[in-house]
Amino acid sequence: MAEKDENVVFIGGKPFMNYVTGVVMQFTTKGAKEVVIKARGKFISRAVDVAEVATKRFLKEFGVTVKDIKINSEEFENKEGKKVNVSTIDIVLAKK
Amino acid sequence: MAEKDENVVFIGGKPFMNYVTGVVMQFTTKGAKEVVIKARGKFISRAVDVAEVATKRFLKEFGVTVKDIKINSEEFENKEGKKVNVSTIDIVLAKK
Repeated sequence: MAEKDENVVFIGGKPFMNYVTGVVMQFTTKGAKEVVIKARGKFISRAVDVAEVATKRFLKEFGVTVKDIKINSEEFENKEGKKVNVSTIDIVLAKK
Repeated sequence: MAEKDENVVFIGGKPFMNYVTGVVMQFTTKGAKEVVIKARGKFISRAVDVAEVATKRFLKEFGVTVKDIKINSEEFENKEGKKVNVSTIDIVLAKK
């Protein structure tokens, strides 16, 4: 999965619909063929919600489906300087 | 993905390592070829953590990797009788 110019939506703590709208608009108004929804840690559940709502409620007639899902781990140093692992997810949505 | 006799670990609110141990033991002592980690809603992040820790920390030498990930939505009625959608994840781990 080359991470070239693909459109990425990174999920955080903003209102849920911001992310859904962001994903939907990439396909509907910006003509994207592929959008990657990325999240880490506790936001992973949210990333799945965004993908589900975007594809099933808004993008069905556009032929957008989940093309690929990858999980991974990243190591980072927390505030105390301790190395911590955090899980990540990449959900690739694509127009058929 | 036929859901025949495959071994399923459903992620909930028990201590994290219970789930990791459950998954690891399916492969190491019960001889499973495939284990499915399932979760709904907020437990999805946890399911990804369990999959990552099990495969990367404990099952690397057993050749167990993430074979497939599926996301979906389920509709159910909450306590107030209102229909609510919840996202689900199935993470399939398999021995190569």
